Amino acid sequence: MFEPVTIGPKTLPNRFYQVPHASGFGSARPRAQAAFRAIKAEGGWGGVCVEYAAVSRESDETPAVSADLWDERDAAALALTADAVHAHGALAGIELFHGGAASQNGSSRAARLAPSQISSELQWGGLAAELTAGDIARIQRDWASAARRAADAGFDIVYVYGAHGYLLTQFLSSATNRRTDGYGGSLANRGRFWLETLAAVRDAVGDRCAIATRIPVHGRRELPGIEIDEMLTVIAMASDLVDLFDVTVGSWPEDSGTSRFYPEGHQQPWTHRVREATAKPIVAVGRYSNPDLMAEVIRSGAVDLIGSARQAIADPFLPAKVQAGRLDEIRECTGSNLCILREETFNHIGCVQNATAGEEWRRGWHPEIFPAPANSTSPVLVVGAGPAGMECAVVLGRRGFDAVHLVEAEPEIGGRLRWIRWLPTLGDWGRIVDYRAVQLSKLPSVQVITGRRMTAADVADYGAETVVIATGSTWRGDGVQPGCPDPMPGADPRSRWILTPEQVCAGKRPPGPRAVVYDADGYYVGAGLAELLAADGFDVTIVTSYPVLSPVSDETLEGDMLRAHVHRAGITVRHAVTLRAIAPGAADAGILLSGTDRNGEPWSLGCDGVVLVTQQASRDSLYRELTAAGPVSGGPLSGGPLSGGPVSGGPVFGGTVYLIGDALAPRLLSEAIFDGHRLGREIGLPSAPVPYLREHASLD
Amino acid sequence: MFEPVTIGPKTLPNRFYQVPHASGFGSARPRAQAAFRAIKAEGGWGGVCVEYAAVSRESDETPAVSADLWDERDAAALALTADAVHAHGALAGIELFHGGAASQNGSSRAARLAPSQISSELQWGGLAAELTAGDIARIQRDWASAARRAADAGFDIVYVYGAHGYLLTQFLSSATNRRTDGYGGSLANRGRFWLETLAAVRDAVGDRCAIATRIPVHGRRELPGIEIDEMLTVIAMASDLVDLFDVTVGSWPEDSGTSRFYPEGHQQPWTHRVREATAKPIVAVGRYSNPDLMAEVIRSGAVDLIGSARQAIADPFLPAKVQAGRLDEIRECTGSNLCILREETFNHIGCVQNATAGEEWRRGWHPEIFPAPANSTSPVLVVGAGPAGMECAVVLGRRGFDAVHLVEAEPEIGGRLRWIRWLPTLGDWGRIVDYRAVQLSKLPSVQVITGRRMTAADVADYGAETVVIATGSTWRGDGVQPGCPDPMPGADPRSRWILTPEQVCAGKRPPGPRAVVYDADGYYVGAGLAELLAADGFDVTIVTSYPVLSPVSDETLEGDMLRAHVHRAGITVRHAVTLRAIAPGAADAGILLSGTDRNGEPWSLGCDGVVLVTQQASRDSLYRELTAAGPVSGGPLSGGPLSGGPVSGGPVFGGTVYLIGDALAPRLLSEAIFDGHRLGREIGLPSAPVPYLREHASLD
Repeated sequence: MFEPVTIGPKTLPNRFYQVPHASGFGSARPRAQAAFRAIKAEGGWGGVCVEYAAVSRESDETPAVSADLWDERDAAALALTADAVHAHGALAGIELFHGGAASQNGSSRAARLAPSQISSELQWGGLAAELTAGDIARIQRDWASAARRAADAGFDIVYVYGAHGYLLTQFLSSATNRRTDGYGGSLANRGRFWLETLAAVRDAVGDRCAIATRIPVHGRRELPGIEIDEMLTVIAMASDLVDLFDVTVGSWPEDSGTSRFYPEGHQQPWTHRVREATAKPIVAVGRYSNPDLMAEVIRSGAVDLIGSARQAIADPFLPAKVQAGRLDEIRECTGSNLCILREETFNHIGCVQNATAGEEWRRGWHPEIFPAPANSTSPVLVVGAGPAGMECAVVLGRRGFDAVHLVEAEPEIGGRLRWIRWLPTLGDWGRIVDYRAVQLSKLPSVQVITGRRMTAADVADYGAETVVIATGSTWRGDGVQPGCPDPMPGADPRSRWILTPEQVCAGKRPPGPRAVVYDADGYYVGAGLAELLAADGFDVTIVTSYPVLSPVSDETLEGDMLRAHVHRAGITVRHAVTLRAIAPGAADAGILLSGTDRNGEPWSLGCDGVVLVTQQASRDSLYRELTAAGPVSGGPLSGGPLSGGPVSGGPVFGGTVYLIGDALAPRLLSEAIFDGHRLGREIGLPSAPVPYLREHASLD
Repeated sequence: MFEPVTIGPKTLPNRFYQVPHASGFGSARPRAQAAFRAIKAEGGWGGVCVEYAAVSRESDETPAVSADLWDERDAAALALTADAVHAHGALAGIELFHGGAASQNGSSRAARLAPSQISSELQWGGLAAELTAGDIARIQRDWASAARRAADAGFDIVYVYGAHGYLLTQFLSSATNRRTDGYGGSLANRGRFWLETLAAVRDAVGDRCAIATRIPVHGRRELPGIEIDEMLTVIAMASDLVDLFDVTVGSWPEDSGTSRFYPEGHQQPWTHRVREATAKPIVAVGRYSNPDLMAEVIRSGAVDLIGSARQAIADPFLPAKVQAGRLDEIRECTGSNLCILREETFNHIGCVQNATAGEEWRRGWHPEIFPAPANSTSPVLVVGAGPAGMECAVVLGRRGFDAVHLVEAEPEIGGRLRWIRWLPTLGDWGRIVDYRAVQLSKLPSVQVITGRRMTAADVADYGAETVVIATGSTWRGDGVQPGCPDPMPGADPRSRWILTPEQVCAGKRPPGPRAVVYDADGYYVGAGLAELLAADGFDVTIVTSYPVLSPVSDETLEGDMLRAHVHRAGITVRHAVTLRAIAPGAADAGILLSGTDRNGEPWSLGCDGVVLVTQQASRDSLYRELTAAGPVSGGPLSGGPLSGGPVSGGPVFGGTVYLIGDALAPRLLSEAIFDGHRLGREIGLPSAPVPYLREHASLD
């Protein structure tokens, strides 16, 4: 893994290669971009690439913040990243691309251009104009110009990117390329645009840069017309023009498949055939997080570099840790795609495992370096060892606090992850707990105490000057749900017919075979519990208030897979129904659910039990007791967004109390961990709360 | 309308008031913002306001680009707008706000804060933390600080904004405010946050600014807990603290209701009661575009100012045109909410009627001033008088070309709008044609010729040196649809069972009572045709490939209304079905539709006729003939995004040919018109195509 690889005129120092992936920084947020990429170079990744950068004005990704490389000003912005990556001895790459029919064009408002007037799977209304010969020549000139600018900006590797359904794929696939000229029809014709573009880029940069190309080698289900044998043929044709083949499989949701539905290395049946067609260096991803597996893949000779996006986000210092033999400090990617959820919702990147991801410049956070407190002798008590509490305690320990106690009421740490990780498909999410359990065990100043439920009096007597309440949240059993703030008639989790998610995980089951899971949450809990019950032999129906099952899963690219998975499990789904009341069934046979359908018309269903996945509630009673009579009499808060604390000087406890994680407000796991991390960093800082930096538009 | 109004320490010069509304420029794109607002001041609007500007860091709207007013740098960016508005004699306002549970917080990643731990209707996962007393006091301090910064930046009017479901509404409504302290319970308690915030802002800015407040006076269906009589009570309580009441009704989709479902002035039953509670100036919106109606509303005394967002976007010069008596030059808002679609999809603003909206700084476009061509004597022929062609001809005429001919094959101009405007609910979209028809009639150098279908030979012989092809698009009858690039078996619009949208509008009807509209388009055509057939007595089912009917209508805020409307019309909807084949029915009774449901399982339905709203195709054969053997042999294109032209020097025609609008690529009406406008501006410019300006991050 630590042997160099020559790619054209450049040499990568090792086999760890951060493939291009979105960050939400692009060229518009140049300082955040530079710091985000530089930290990976510092952590030992030998090649570090910037995300997709558009070469032509009619390929803009607005509203997503991607990179553009249209003029010298864009180049100047991106040069910050090349410089920052070089400072740590890595090579810097940039992924030049054209979106074709998949272009957003929200800023340019230009017509989309594509080989044929096809609709795009990626965009509503993405009906494109057919490229003229002049357009084709112009785009190739644009690509060459952008490559020249990238070389001038200091990039070592320039891409001709055409994976994931963008313009190059549209040319290669017979499903999207219906041209009758020299760019359509035969494989040679469909590959012509690619080969000509590679040649144009080679002419433009000569030996100043290595030329990489990223293409799909097989379309799987979702990229019709891309077929491995054809692709090997064109790869052989392109081989002389390419210094590094970056190969992918299928559509983006498949290529970046989550741990729920794809094992590590799931692309190997196709990517490991590329060697048949070329002797040039090859990089492929596989969501690898295990260094032994990485080494095995390299030793096999199938590829030359381990490509990584998500694992490099989760742990920028993986290579350094491997080299130093600190394997138990590697933060393994969970494969949850919460990073992609952030990007798909047009935000900057985040990570459930690595709270510092994307915050390197914005907040000055380094994943491995933590600011020492002004007063390390002040003891801190963290109540609750769920995601937020564990993370907070780890950070406090790393900062050098002399005494940090993490006290958990349950016999094990992990909070809600104790049961989430046992839901079908969600096992890899357990890495969130496992990583932190190991780190906690290695921090001598942090003491973990399980099986101890704290009262307010216990906390007040504990001896800590600072208390962090991280007691999490529970699922409500009263049927309160989005849009319905009052309890649902008949919703009572003491009834044997009515179940909360926690009750199901603790073993409670409906008293008869007909089980309903009512999902007004829309993410993984409803489907996960339904599958659990189906595996137990229940006849399961999911009733969801949304028009599709689990709309949030679309943002993690899992939606279609999850829905197919649920269908294969024999689970029925009723869509767009709002449950409004639960009543005993006729002749004491089960219960009758009643509600309204999408038209507001009455709806009902009989069953033997219903799991209410409706809404969560913060478990904040301990916080309220400590801060006396509740929020009104709470003491002064500091300004800014560290809400939930610190509160000080209440009658019960004279120290400082903070409230974090789901106990403050139930959110995504990544956000609860972020909350714990942030508080861990900022406790005791004279400047807390610390505002984040923003990039500002030049007013010149 | 032209009498001044005193609001506190300031005086508005007239009764035309551009209320705050989103632009997609915020404080992050300061020069585009300044130019966008300044053009309205130049056009005569006496008050011009910037959109919602967050006062606190835990209320950020990322990924939407709204304004922030957190520090001096934000203030410096927004000061550009205040200065630019003042340069034209108008007052500048800024809408300070806090989103509460509806905050996005994509950048801050802070927990949302709200009166109670409620879910937000506006955000998935928007479960908020309950505000502590300290939070409340801090937010009020933040509001005062932001107001002070706004005053320093030169703003004349500062808002305490709480309409449309944001924090203030969350306090006022008993549905969202479940507090048991002094800020919840009684009306006086629920109004306390508002009154205290107004007082804090008054203390902060003294007599430097007028203080406006924007609140809902009735919740209608969608803002539960907001009731007119209660609101009048609190308005009376707040009256002494307020210089201008900006009053709204209902949720945003209701308040900004489209012309399809709401008449002009639909809010009057509630907004016109506010006078009962206060003698202070009042502004209310009503999507008014008729100056006579505006004057009537002012004369009634119910309100003091005509508030406008959409009409001011559609015609920034409405006040100037009213004053000059040029009433027939007013571009009336269509009420289509395409402006909001742009904003809801996180793009900068656009307008179907006014292509210059949002492009004032980006492209240097002025809605009333057009650049003279270098050579005005060169004749131009525009073929096709649909939206793009009409717009292009108007712009060419205004630029001063000596001879512009607009030739249309049909007996009337309007293109697809000739039939769209007759679909149920879509009448006001006809304003797109009506406005342009009047302008064309007033431009002596533009000649409109209808009923003349041009061949390539006709064009070549016409005598024009420049030809613009704007021949639009047609709906395919072959069943090609998104994701299915090959024709559908059995789809043949010559069959009496199978209909295209244009055929329906031309009078073709299914031969039996059971009509199906298959909608793979997802906007207004499918539902509109279904309603047309239902009104004709057919038993109509819409089969749509989407999980909801018309998902695009959600971006125009119409989705829920449209679906309720369709349901009331007795139309059945089958969701998430992909139609794959059409075959004769059993015993020659109608036809059998077959396809797959959302699980990929077989699906079928018998009927007497199906309307295929699947996909459009550009009508570009004339362009292809003129440019000889099609795109491959086309001449050289200019660089940049003016795709589709110019092509010159072909064997058929020696002049220059451009292709615009749907004939280039079928798109939204607003984009087709934008295309025509842009080409009209750039034909004959030595610098064409002209790239747009972008705001760049400071690298300091």
